[in-house]
Amino acid sequence: MLLLHRAMVLRLQQACRLKSIHSRLCIQACSTNESFQPQRPSLTFSGDNASTGGWRVMGTLLGLGAVLAYQDHQCRAAQESTHIYTKEEVSSHTSPETGIWVTLGSEVFDVTEFVDLHPGGPSKLMLAAGGPLEPFWALYAVHNQSHVRELLAQYKIGELNPEDKVAPTVETSDPYADDPVRHPALKVNSQCPFNAEPPPELLTENYITPNPIFFTRNHLPVPNVDPDTYRLHVVGAPGGQSLSLSLDDLHKFPKYEITVTLQCAGNRRSEMTQVKEVKGLEWRTGAISTARWGGARLCDVLAQAGHQLCETEAHVCFEGLDSDPTGTAYGASIPLARAMDPEAEVLLAYEMNGQPLPRDHGFPVRVVVPGVVGARHVKWLGRVSVQPEESYSHWQRRDYKGFSPSVDWDTVNFDSAPSIQELPVQSAITEPQDGETVESGEVTIKGYAWSGGGRAVIRVDVSLDGGLTWQVAELDGEEQRPRKAWAWRLWQLQVPVPAGQKELNIVCKAVDDGYNVQPDTVAPIWNLRGVLSNAWHRVHVHVAP
Amino acid sequence: MLLLHRAMVLRLQQACRLKSIHSRLCIQACSTNESFQPQRPSLTFSGDNASTGGWRVMGTLLGLGAVLAYQDHQCRAAQESTHIYTKEEVSSHTSPETGIWVTLGSEVFDVTEFVDLHPGGPSKLMLAAGGPLEPFWALYAVHNQSHVRELLAQYKIGELNPEDKVAPTVETSDPYADDPVRHPALKVNSQCPFNAEPPPELLTENYITPNPIFFTRNHLPVPNVDPDTYRLHVVGAPGGQSLSLSLDDLHKFPKYEITVTLQCAGNRRSEMTQVKEVKGLEWRTGAISTARWGGARLCDVLAQAGHQLCETEAHVCFEGLDSDPTGTAYGASIPLARAMDPEAEVLLAYEMNGQPLPRDHGFPVRVVVPGVVGARHVKWLGRVSVQPEESYSHWQRRDYKGFSPSVDWDTVNFDSAPSIQELPVQSAITEPQDGETVESGEVTIKGYAWSGGGRAVIRVDVSLDGGLTWQVAELDGEEQRPRKAWAWRLWQLQVPVPAGQKELNIVCKAVDDGYNVQPDTVAPIWNLRGVLSNAWHRVHVHVAP
Repeated sequence: MLLLHRAMVLRLQQACRLKSIHSRLCIQACSTNESFQPQRPSLTFSGDNASTGGWRVMGTLLGLGAVLAYQDHQCRAAQESTHIYTKEEVSSHTSPETGIWVTLGSEVFDVTEFVDLHPGGPSKLMLAAGGPLEPFWALYAVHNQSHVRELLAQYKIGELNPEDKVAPTVETSDPYADDPVRHPALKVNSQCPFNAEPPPELLTENYITPNPIFFTRNHLPVPNVDPDTYRLHVVGAPGGQSLSLSLDDLHKFPKYEITVTLQCAGNRRSEMTQVKEVKGLEWRTGAISTARWGGARLCDVLAQAGHQLCETEAHVCFEGLDSDPTGTAYGASIPLARAMDPEAEVLLAYEMNGQPLPRDHGFPVRVVVPGVVGARHVKWLGRVSVQPEESYSHWQRRDYKGFSPSVDWDTVNFDSAPSIQELPVQSAITEPQDGETVESGEVTIKGYAWSGGGRAVIRVDVSLDGGLTWQVAELDGEEQRPRKAWAWRLWQLQVPVPAGQKELNIVCKAVDDGYNVQPDTVAPIWNLRGVLSNAWHRVHVHVAP
Repeated sequence: MLLLHRAMVLRLQQACRLKSIHSRLCIQACSTNESFQPQRPSLTFSGDNASTGGWRVMGTLLGLGAVLAYQDHQCRAAQESTHIYTKEEVSSHTSPETGIWVTLGSEVFDVTEFVDLHPGGPSKLMLAAGGPLEPFWALYAVHNQSHVRELLAQYKIGELNPEDKVAPTVETSDPYADDPVRHPALKVNSQCPFNAEPPPELLTENYITPNPIFFTRNHLPVPNVDPDTYRLHVVGAPGGQSLSLSLDDLHKFPKYEITVTLQCAGNRRSEMTQVKEVKGLEWRTGAISTARWGGARLCDVLAQAGHQLCETEAHVCFEGLDSDPTGTAYGASIPLARAMDPEAEVLLAYEMNGQPLPRDHGFPVRVVVPGVVGARHVKWLGRVSVQPEESYSHWQRRDYKGFSPSVDWDTVNFDSAPSIQELPVQSAITEPQDGETVESGEVTIKGYAWSGGGRAVIRVDVSLDGGLTWQVAELDGEEQRPRKAWAWRLWQLQVPVPAGQKELNIVCKAVDDGYNVQPDTVAPIWNLRGVLSNAWHRVHVHVAP
């Protein structure tokens, strides 16, 4: 089944290249049609229907990171849906030349002009060309949302011959059936793939986040790796030798232990969504956690494979053992200069807080790249290679990048922005929480602060009046080493509630040792991917009378 | 004369230490006196008077970087000035035990409680203890401002015996008499020491700033160094050897050339002053310039003196050949880790844009520390040593640090903040200028953008409506190397003026490759030293009808 898919994708990818000029012309022509109002959803396919059908509705965020902000797109192939098509007719529309058709339930859609706009990448949508969407929407549950159905409705061209209607439940094995059991405290943003964050009140309870509540960001089903047969393939340098390392082999390298905070680029996305819709995982303040990681240094392993820092602009590409139905593994890369720098302390980690990595966090081996966005800390690591360019993975080149607030899905050029590596300074309030009622008298405000690139947090300012006046919070947690401040600082401020106040607008902002600061507001850093959300964190609370 | 001063300072510094407890108690007691209103100035000393007296009014910013924001201080020793004192009586008040008195014109002041608050450091004020202020104010012209005189008036205790009145012109040789001639285009913020910036319209005319209009930040008179007898003293490591390098010796090290932008920590201070007064050099947007520097790598020179990066937390201390009347040289330090890192490209530069360094920029040798605040690029370099701690220089420990907006001169603890090294992301509009009238039709907006730490500027967003909507500017200037983006990017945006607009609120903000952004507004980053002013730059222009 997977092999079949792969062959089809290759064929269809070739077709995609041929039609790109056509599609671009269409986008230009249609983008002037600004007065058009989208139709209401007309589809009957329901996620609930599928979830009660014996297997859970599943979804991977494959390439789109759960963001489907294309609903404002103006192109619509047809507004009327009177035609009746046979299944055979549909199946003959699988290329730009013939048109690319798909079905959902009894409805037929011409998505030719949409293929190139698909946030998950054209190839993912082309998997369904000429046939039903259901088997794929079952895998990528993020589609089961009203705005996606609204969007699709704009491409409707007719109805399927009633005799040809596809059964809503398709025989598909559940790739998530083997996912591990999770801690019930986690706030789940997406079940399949599993994405969840600890609640704020637990997040800053401990400087080291306990493994079971460490935030989890999976892009695909969790692979079940046999530690006895596991091998990490490291491609050798020219003149060097490729390595095939067992877990025991990895343990023979000198072991390093470092405390590192991981943060998802989408942490605090929910605040961006409040400014303007960004579809996807609604991370609140919890897509960040801290652990003590143990493992071999990447630079030692690369050196054994003969790599040196002679080609300073090269990149180290990582591939996970997690893969999508096309066989494409999760992948990402970091600059070779960082990988080879002993001071950057990049690890091939096999321990998390003194225990073998939990399955959700990459068992048996993951990359840990201190100071860098979580997306590069590739889990279930299968392959390491040095390449002249960044990873060609979707997640490196078509995701996890920042853009101007003016850029939308019609104008975005992913090649124009660098992949996110180091993250900017960040902080958030975890106590009290938004909407809470606090006692008059004294209030204790708690939170975390962190910055990328090894830059230490040197100060956290807290305001009770929305940012008019500030007080300096007390920094807790471990002192950080110069240039290697890989972990967060927790902070708190005990402060009298000003007499007579009925509410407080609590704000925090952090400063790192490069004197970088957080921006005041969200709107000017809004971006279509909802990443890099690091404006002042604001919490509104009531004061008990 | 200098020797005499030095001996006196030593004696007085000892005295200062003894009285520190007393002074702190005073600060606490007085800081509750919030209702007191400062008196109007009552002194007749005039800068104009001095400047026409045959020698220019001179000033060095010695240790206070031209900021004298202590006028709000609440302590006042006396409100009445009826007593008459003899010169002899005044001269017996030179210690905390006796009280510390000074005179200005015919007036006598007890500044015992102020000595510790002196932004230039207690030792500088103690130079004048028991005698007239005029000779020192002549050196430090920044004092000749009304708010300083207002402050001093609060400490007045009486009048000097008319027979003992000091002549307003004091015999003092002018340490600035030998300063070089400057380009008339420079906008002068302080003549003595010389501090000046290029006008905005010239600043971004060239990617490389021509030497004559490169911004100049001097803390002291410009030394006149004989290149033939010049020696750079490099203290050797234990087991290594100290070096005494002539210019020829330095030329024997491999020569490196790099393009580096230097920025003063006080660039754009004038915008902070608009929020709340910050006394000092009113740098506009021009305390930043870019040159091609040539010289020996610091790491090569340190290696020859036997230094290694074994003590990773050590610092490299630099001393200039410029010194104040006490013989104290300008000094600063950077971490040894940066100094020894070949990738950090720290230079001992002897060339600026292909020419020997101009005298104003450190002839014959200055330090160039790419990505780091200008204050560490020590000019007229005389001595290099490796120390376990940062430089004890005033400019390293009591200046060039950032604080919360809530911190004032009564509460500041300079030890609580790290010295500024890397600077945060910065950008400014140089064309059009604030208040200008632009043609309707199309407007061209130009400016610069830069970030510290080798982080490249990846994007500049420009708004015509005060930050509601944004457009992406075109980046000009040289592409930057990864992790070594030491130089600015110039940028421009040609954009139609929206029809019917009578005015534009133009704003710019930059993003660096760590996705650090500039804060929206100035007030939340305001600090008592007026440094790190990197909020969005705003320019209001009128549109010609």
